[in-house]
Amino acid sequence: MEGKKTYRVFRFESDVRWTQTRECQISAPGKPELAMSSPPEFKGTPGLWSPEDMFVASVNVCTLMTFLAYSHHKNLALISYECSAEGTLEYSNGKYRFTEITLHPHLMLKSHEDVEPARAILLDAHNNCLITNSIVAQVKIFPDFHVAPPTG
Amino acid sequence: MEGKKTYRVFRFESDVRWTQTRECQISAPGKPELAMSSPPEFKGTPGLWSPEDMFVASVNVCTLMTFLAYSHHKNLALISYECSAEGTLEYSNGKYRFTEITLHPHLMLKSHEDVEPARAILLDAHNNCLITNSIVAQVKIFPDFHVAPPTG
Repeated sequence: MEGKKTYRVFRFESDVRWTQTRECQISAPGKPELAMSSPPEFKGTPGLWSPEDMFVASVNVCTLMTFLAYSHHKNLALISYECSAEGTLEYSNGKYRFTEITLHPHLMLKSHEDVEPARAILLDAHNNCLITNSIVAQVKIFPDFHVAPPTG
Repeated sequence: MEGKKTYRVFRFESDVRWTQTRECQISAPGKPELAMSSPPEFKGTPGLWSPEDMFVASVNVCTLMTFLAYSHHKNLALISYECSAEGTLEYSNGKYRFTEITLHPHLMLKSHEDVEPARAILLDAHNNCLITNSIVAQVKIFPDFHVAPPTG
């Protein structure tokens, strides 16, 4: 059995409760309740997160979290990371669905020597992001890397 | 060109910013900022929503919102709707990914005559939920229907 990998199974639970019109609350034990709604394009309330927003954000956040985990293992020091994401929802193969999500991460690093390792770690994170692995939309990533000016 | 359907394209944008350790903030213009984290199983902070949670919740909320839209068109009166969701993340075909999401909606209706129409509308919503259409995980729905006791 030497070298045999074991794989774990993880389960994630939450609840939704309809409140009014096109609004609801999501909840999970110990977590803050969050009001959500259809997007305004589908008669929802502006100013609330929609399931479409959360779908796109889950890809964005999971890519970051995977990058943070891999960076930790590789001892890469990160100064900042911000990423805008855009998801495209359109009619494709007989149904409306997300066909593409684009990510534009901006990373601030400590030195020029960190740029290529950071790029490799980010592409590895992108290729192993478990939400990206779970969707049919194509996820594209366009990172840019910056180096912080020396201090003191 | 009579009868030709036109299909719209929708775009959903949001941002993520790393804050500390395995935590971040998500933001979008006009919407409340939300702190998120890796789940505790992956060294994250308990009590914060994770991308895995939001992935599962997006399926749950989108199913509800689709049901509300269809119910409105069919003049179905709904008293309450609550739904627990569980997503299963496991190793499958060489990668970790969500393989299944189960939904258990509990619907309260006004009369027994509404039960079968509600069931049909819910299954139609399930089959056309645009988040469900966008993922590789199999979404299974196990609804139950109740009728509110007469008042007055």
